[in-house]
Amino acid sequence: MVVILKNTSTEEQIGELLKWLGKFNVSTHFVEGTHQKIIGLIGDTTTIDIDDVAAKDCVESVRRVQEPYKNANRRFHPDNTVMDIGGRETGGGKLQVIAGPCSVETREQLITTAVAVKQAGATMLRGGAFKPRTSPYAFQGLGKEGIDILIEARKVTGLPIVTEIMDAKDLELFADVDVIQVGARNMQNFTLLKELGRCDKPVLLKRGLSATLQELLMSAEYIMSEGNSKVILCERGIRTYEPATRNTLDLSAVPLLHQKTHLPVCVDPSHATGIVSLVEPMALAAVAAGCDLLEIEVHNDPKNAWSDGAQQLTPAQFGETMKKIMSISGFVGKPLWNEVNK
Amino acid sequence: MVVILKNTSTEEQIGELLKWLGKFNVSTHFVEGTHQKIIGLIGDTTTIDIDDVAAKDCVESVRRVQEPYKNANRRFHPDNTVMDIGGRETGGGKLQVIAGPCSVETREQLITTAVAVKQAGATMLRGGAFKPRTSPYAFQGLGKEGIDILIEARKVTGLPIVTEIMDAKDLELFADVDVIQVGARNMQNFTLLKELGRCDKPVLLKRGLSATLQELLMSAEYIMSEGNSKVILCERGIRTYEPATRNTLDLSAVPLLHQKTHLPVCVDPSHATGIVSLVEPMALAAVAAGCDLLEIEVHNDPKNAWSDGAQQLTPAQFGETMKKIMSISGFVGKPLWNEVNK
Amino acid sequence: MVVILKNTSTEEQIGELLKWLGKFNVSTHFVEGTHQKIIGLIGDTTTIDIDDVAAKDCVESVRRVQEPYKNANRRFHPDNTVMDIGGRETGGGKLQVIAGPCSVETREQLITTAVAVKQAGATMLRGGAFKPRTSPYAFQGLGKEGIDILIEARKVTGLPIVTEIMDAKDLELFADVDVIQVGARNMQNFTLLKELGRCDKPVLLKRGLSATLQELLMSAEYIMSEGNSKVILCERGIRTYEPATRNTLDLSAVPLLHQKTHLPVCVDPSHATGIVSLVEPMALAAVAAGCDLLEIEVHNDPKNAWSDGAQQLTPAQFGETMKKIMSISGFVGKPLWNEVNK
Amino acid sequence: MVVILKNTSTEEQIGELLKWLGKFNVSTHFVEGTHQKIIGLIGDTTTIDIDDVAAKDCVESVRRVQEPYKNANRRFHPDNTVMDIGGRETGGGKLQVIAGPCSVETREQLITTAVAVKQAGATMLRGGAFKPRTSPYAFQGLGKEGIDILIEARKVTGLPIVTEIMDAKDLELFADVDVIQVGARNMQNFTLLKELGRCDKPVLLKRGLSATLQELLMSAEYIMSEGNSKVILCERGIRTYEPATRNTLDLSAVPLLHQKTHLPVCVDPSHATGIVSLVEPMALAAVAAGCDLLEIEVHNDPKNAWSDGAQQLTPAQFGETMKKIMSISGFVGKPLWNEVNK
Repeated sequence: MVVILKNTSTEEQIGELLKWLGKFNVSTHFVEGTHQKIIGLIGDTTTIDIDDVAAKDCVESVRRVQEPYKNANRRFHPDNTVMDIGGRETGGGKLQVIAGPCSVETREQLITTAVAVKQAGATMLRGGAFKPRTSPYAFQGLGKEGIDILIEARKVTGLPIVTEIMDAKDLELFADVDVIQVGARNMQNFTLLKELGRCDKPVLLKRGLSATLQELLMSAEYIMSEGNSKVILCERGIRTYEPATRNTLDLSAVPLLHQKTHLPVCVDPSHATGIVSLVEPMALAAVAAGCDLLEIEVHNDPKNAWSDGAQQLTPAQFGETMKKIMSISGFVGKPLWNEVNK
Repeated sequence: MVVILKNTSTEEQIGELLKWLGKFNVSTHFVEGTHQKIIGLIGDTTTIDIDDVAAKDCVESVRRVQEPYKNANRRFHPDNTVMDIGGRETGGGKLQVIAGPCSVETREQLITTAVAVKQAGATMLRGGAFKPRTSPYAFQGLGKEGIDILIEARKVTGLPIVTEIMDAKDLELFADVDVIQVGARNMQNFTLLKELGRCDKPVLLKRGLSATLQELLMSAEYIMSEGNSKVILCERGIRTYEPATRNTLDLSAVPLLHQKTHLPVCVDPSHATGIVSLVEPMALAAVAAGCDLLEIEVHNDPKNAWSDGAQQLTPAQFGETMKKIMSISGFVGKPLWNEVNK
Repeated sequence: MVVILKNTSTEEQIGELLKWLGKFNVSTHFVEGTHQKIIGLIGDTTTIDIDDVAAKDCVESVRRVQEPYKNANRRFHPDNTVMDIGGRETGGGKLQVIAGPCSVETREQLITTAVAVKQAGATMLRGGAFKPRTSPYAFQGLGKEGIDILIEARKVTGLPIVTEIMDAKDLELFADVDVIQVGARNMQNFTLLKELGRCDKPVLLKRGLSATLQELLMSAEYIMSEGNSKVILCERGIRTYEPATRNTLDLSAVPLLHQKTHLPVCVDPSHATGIVSLVEPMALAAVAAGCDLLEIEVHNDPKNAWSDGAQQLTPAQFGETMKKIMSISGFVGKPLWNEVNK
Repeated sequence: MVVILKNTSTEEQIGELLKWLGKFNVSTHFVEGTHQKIIGLIGDTTTIDIDDVAAKDCVESVRRVQEPYKNANRRFHPDNTVMDIGGRETGGGKLQVIAGPCSVETREQLITTAVAVKQAGATMLRGGAFKPRTSPYAFQGLGKEGIDILIEARKVTGLPIVTEIMDAKDLELFADVDVIQVGARNMQNFTLLKELGRCDKPVLLKRGLSATLQELLMSAEYIMSEGNSKVILCERGIRTYEPATRNTLDLSAVPLLHQKTHLPVCVDPSHATGIVSLVEPMALAAVAAGCDLLEIEVHNDPKNAWSDGAQQLTPAQFGETMKKIMSISGFVGKPLWNEVNK
């Protein structure tokens, strides 16, 4: 951490600041020039709140040099985190593809879709039971019934199931779910994150619409600091000024997160673009960029879907896309899990 | 709602679409040109999910013409919503100023600050008991104890109290609070919004960091659609590429929201800028733009604050700012409530 | 400037870096901790290209502490820059209001509008002769003829004229113009900036659509480094994700620029919002925030304007707005120039 | 185009509007409901300025249904534009890779780099002679001398040369250049675009930092409307709130532009990310997304580069990256031109 002092700061103020900094486990280095005075802090600055430093009367500005997260930091945990999800090794050099509808609508819809995506090569099944919708007048999901249908679909197909939680109070309903998803709007629902940190399930944490990668990692840190280290990070598009796509898929996040953290990285091209015809090229690009998981929306009858129909592939479209994903994933050294475990 | 059809759409597809649209309470108008076919929908389109229309196979794109919110819409409720907050008429042509520290830290800190802001002219008291913090290692608030201290400060000063809720499960702790605040990160915590819709307290709803004004109004609609019409909207800065301020205060939101909705509009210059020296000019600008409430952070000793010290005014600074606010507010025809009710 | 070194950096690499830094007029301070090595540079770092430092093989990252601009920097020039524009003192504690149509269309249109805005209290006249338009099929301005008409309008009203240049090659056509405007799209047209730096006229430099305030100041520095110190900075809205207004007016820029620089600051609420009904509240807010100039679009017949009709006030609307501007400007201590020089 | 009328609009106002619309080559369709009146315009609306319509007194809002560009529109020109650049077919199903240093620094530096990139498989050579720099104190390029060195490097290697123009007045210096590049900051320098429209050379048009894809296409339209149809569009990162990369590479632009236009699409991962370690994964992702060209910065000695060293690959790194590019490009059906024309 580097603290730039005001030119007008007095020795007394600086003394007070140094005394206060003494409470933390850092060493301080004072640098004085003709026009500027700087204090460099060396050591574990994770527990120092940068805003607290900025508030001191002799401080002009503060810059953090080291990342404010520890558990999620590759610097301290060089090896990739690998987790077992229903027998599927995730984060360890194999690609996993999560597919399924936006919302669980009916038993028939989900099972039909689940069987189709399995056949096309998907390795996990998704489906929303609790749906965060912008409008209170839109379909809000089947709730518990949706989770029951997912569990049934797992019995039929053997695919582990991934579904979204919206509130910590519902956690017990997710006892038999394989991966709990946290949606973009809840990335900083800290109460929820802490609760998930106390359970033992993999959490698929989606990047907030305007979250920086550092904030995403800090939200992972919330979960990990409570004891649960099975966090998967998911890039799903960020909000920008460009109206042509629903969001802007930030694929640079994939290699950048791989540098910063040991956690697996997922990409969701369906929510990012919101446009069926862009899902395949962006899925291929994500694989070429090195993602560990893909999450793709597939519906047995998109034009009659109860939500997000415009971005869901048909099973036939998904089948074509999976063929290309399999080839590219093999080529970039992260083969589809199915291909390796036939 | 205007539906633009694909050039390749067949009569059968269009027939199906029209049949499906027949389920809603709208009339359809078909317009056919040489290169384009358009369907115009006239009537109450609030309950039509624009994504469902976009998913139909003959649809190229859809544009909404009418707003998707009803309860919050000035078109249907031309008169301003006026609410009574501890005897203070809010939204009815008087300015209210909420002031107080970022976090409740100690009994002494809050009461000292509360007495000071009251003396300077504030009409309500704020203070955070539950604190949403980016880092799990930062101070998370005093919780219930913080609310108890706020209630005590109300006894001492007579100022109604405003404090933030982070999770629906804590709602009963807020039974004796005057205004419940929903933070920017929870603007789309729909579970929380619905719960607040079922209680009878004013809700101060902060705009999400990357929320559009329409999304803010849709979140107000969530609360209102459950029965609680006492919603105050709060502009507190949005996330942009500009690093010089913490967020970019979008003051155009004030007159624009006044056109779109009958709900009172608040501005928070402290969180928007994150810089003490910008709070006063932005507070004055907000008043000139016509806001109904201001929320300003004041701390009896900002340089030792436990959170956000860099943006909190001292009581002396706040006193100076209040003098200017009183003059300008009178001038633009929305005098400070105190001045009218001496 | 603070240079954070890679943990893996060798003594040889660091030696090379220190030698290279020795070429600049700075002193270097080496700080070494258990996990980190940092070099602090003290002195005039303006001429060091931060990217050159970042490229060195032992460097992990670099942070600038001091601003990279000198001529525009208040730190080195504490007093406000005051300039005389046709007898009107600008930047010295009086408010100037530039008004007029988006485009010069005809002699009659401009003169009618010019007489009207003068009567309402405007202190300068604007009008576009060269028009940057997104579409090649839209009206591109009258060019030289437009400037001739502006000069005629100045004769009639006595108001100094402000008009936009689009290319350095046209500079001689602007010989008799009072203020040369550089549009947002040309804020980083460095060829043009350098040419303007060699002339002796006030330049109204508009902030680019996605320019940071520091980049705006660097563009001012381009002009100033060639010898012309008469630069006026203009906030005119930045591009964000919010679609409700054409751009997002960043009013915090006004006090922030006043802290960073001694140059006068202008606000253009017409282009920022693109909506007539928002021009007045945003103009008043800008004055409350302390701007030195306002630029407002006024047209004698907006609904038949050849460009940007939706954001231009009628003379009657402008008259009403000017009355309020006069009162508020007096109140915040920066009275309208007209009022002081009756 | 769809025009939504104000509820308060009178028959006379609507009559005037319809009369005015009669001047354009469109048919008008009036749709009247209980709460809303809409006019649908069918035909060629390219020449109607949407802002002119919005300015009419009876108009509430206007939405464009058809794209405002013609020459660049795939709807009217379904086949890909294929251009010959020094014998290299571009846009026709082969991948071209432009490589070379950010700036031309010396004869030796450029020729060394040119020979190396050719050997690694690059099909064109880049190098900046005129450099747009944020700071007036940074290296501004060698100008004409730089172009002479590029021409010499072409003689040595046979690679066509690509270099940036900053001002229309320099156009004659580019007479012997193969591709003229327009930088992001000049994407809306309309004077320059028109001049380039009158020459017969391929133009590599970079997307502005905050330009929408539609604006990029409108800038292409400026060039094409003057007669030059050889335009290459280049995605090079857009400005967002995320600070971890210099810009955010918007790869969805590749398939989206391929849908909207027949022009070839280039991706520049070097400027987009600004970080050497991200160039390879983003280059591979761009190829997987279907780009027609890549532009990659390579320098024989990046750590001593005169500009942008932190984003330039060494020849060895570029060689490794090219091997992977060749494999992936073959796989996605757009093989590297070299591979096909050995």
